Amino acid sequence: MSNSLKGRFITVEGGEGAGKSSNLDYIRNLLSSAGKQVVFTREPGGTPLGEAIRDLLLGHQHTGMADDTELLLMFAARAEHLQQKIKPALQQGQWVLCDRFTDASYAYQGAGRGLASDRIASLEQFVQGELRPDLTLLLDLPVEQGLARAGQRSEPDRFEKQEMSFFEKVRAGYLEIAAREPHRVKIIDASKPLETVQQQIDHVVTAFLEQSGG
Amino acid sequence: MSNSLKGRFITVEGGEGAGKSSNLDYIRNLLSSAGKQVVFTREPGGTPLGEAIRDLLLGHQHTGMADDTELLLMFAARAEHLQQKIKPALQQGQWVLCDRFTDASYAYQGAGRGLASDRIASLEQFVQGELRPDLTLLLDLPVEQGLARAGQRSEPDRFEKQEMSFFEKVRAGYLEIAAREPHRVKIIDASKPLETVQQQIDHVVTAFLEQSGG
Repeated sequence: MSNSLKGRFITVEGGEGAGKSSNLDYIRNLLSSAGKQVVFTREPGGTPLGEAIRDLLLGHQHTGMADDTELLLMFAARAEHLQQKIKPALQQGQWVLCDRFTDASYAYQGAGRGLASDRIASLEQFVQGELRPDLTLLLDLPVEQGLARAGQRSEPDRFEKQEMSFFEKVRAGYLEIAAREPHRVKIIDASKPLETVQQQIDHVVTAFLEQSGG
Repeated sequence: MSNSLKGRFITVEGGEGAGKSSNLDYIRNLLSSAGKQVVFTREPGGTPLGEAIRDLLLGHQHTGMADDTELLLMFAARAEHLQQKIKPALQQGQWVLCDRFTDASYAYQGAGRGLASDRIASLEQFVQGELRPDLTLLLDLPVEQGLARAGQRSEPDRFEKQEMSFFEKVRAGYLEIAAREPHRVKIIDASKPLETVQQQIDHVVTAFLEQSGG
């Protein structure tokens, strides 16, 4: 991330049923306890316009949406999110904790739908310039286990209705990013019991706080 | 346009109050009379999802929208439009007549809002590949005259609420494109009385039909 920004940008990624919600709460508390002012947000969404775009993306009215359209809508929402919320917060020294970000575009639209990663990279560059998350926690678990957990919840959205093989590709896409950027992306084994998952998160967040000067 | 497509792709551009609607009807009739099967459509929009995006773009709920967001939404709607409507029609040999296309992005978001044209070009390449209109009619008239005409109509949308200087830049942007691509873009002097405007359109469309083999 650009050094001219004072805050830190932390993202959390993971497939269906990885326990993102409860673990995001846990991370938020860890950061607050360390005295950080935390802005909590999510993608796609995070702004009124972004949430309207989210509705187009996740709803069932537009199931036949072209892959390029989906990717451009994701980045349109992201451009708004960065401009209106993320960058201003970072510039004020706040810590931004975001439920999904561009890694999800590489995993879902890239690995999942088969869009070439250099096409995604061109939009990433267009929208973000040099801005990247400082830290990403990837909540990883086997697809079957995640879907079993997710299935116990509410009505599936347009993404949750995909085939099993789609989610296998998404998971592989995420793991590939983690392998390529081990310094930024930390894998959390989300198949373990909650307490063990939280211990892993503690470890990663504490190390990051120390490295960020407390 | 790619030669593998059999139909022809004609776009009509112009600022506020240039008389696009009635002249589009006139062009449609000319093409139909020449035996062409005409698909008439518009941007932003043209598909159910595109029209939903149009509502986000033209409505007043999101007046503070970031320039990048606006541009990405335009191209998201365009990607959908090309995939679901324009390309299939061209492949079936139909003639597509479209109320505004990418030239409007260069004129409104580029010249008007000041977005760098190479950024627009990168999205144009992303979404369209090599596909370009075969013919573009630019309905040109002085800004004051156009706004005076437009002002007699319905409630202004988010674009129509811009300052005069914005529309001057848009007009200059369109004229710059026409100067750069005289073979594709034909300027129609829309300040003239309707009959004279239609004579100019006749001339351009007839020449294009002849050049297209009837």
